[in-house]
Amino acid sequence: MIQHTVTFRFAEDAQVDAFWTRVDELREIPGVQRFAVLRQVGSKNDFTHGLSMYFESDVEYAAYNDHPVHVAFVAEAWLPNVADFLELDYVVDDR
Amino acid sequence: MIQHTVTFRFAEDAQVDAFWTRVDELREIPGVQRFAVLRQVGSKNDFTHGLSMYFESDVEYAAYNDHPVHVAFVAEAWLPNVADFLELDYVVDDR
Repeated sequence: MIQHTVTFRFAEDAQVDAFWTRVDELREIPGVQRFAVLRQVGSKNDFTHGLSMYFESDVEYAAYNDHPVHVAFVAEAWLPNVADFLELDYVVDDR
Repeated sequence: MIQHTVTFRFAEDAQVDAFWTRVDELREIPGVQRFAVLRQVGSKNDFTHGLSMYFESDVEYAAYNDHPVHVAFVAEAWLPNVADFLELDYVVDDR
């Protein structure tokens, strides 16, 4: 199981309501589990929000990345509205 | 409920085994819930690991930060062994 996360902040001229409407489309992409919209509340960075979702394996994660809904989201909603972001992907460390 | 996360990478001369032994002490601090050690597997950043834990509220989070075990961990295990890190704290966005 892979947890895909991205933390981000909006651009000054972001169309925030339209952005969140497009975010909701991501929930429906096959393989996406436990999709969550988060607020980043820590004071030690400039990010304001986060998205988190889980995939069973790399296969589902790759299919999500390549899915037309995701590709269109990145081009039409993410890039025009997000000023800065960081993607972090986690697996439980079972040492 | 607040999720406190930190992603990080080790310094070149890190004493990794001793570091993880000290990490385990954090689990026992009062108020810490669902403590997890994570590997960061995404290729779009340089971090290699993460820690994640939940607190019921800011009260428990502040008590953790100020707890002697945490303060000693930061000074004796974190700072000498970690080359770079980013703390991100999340709450579910209930818009």
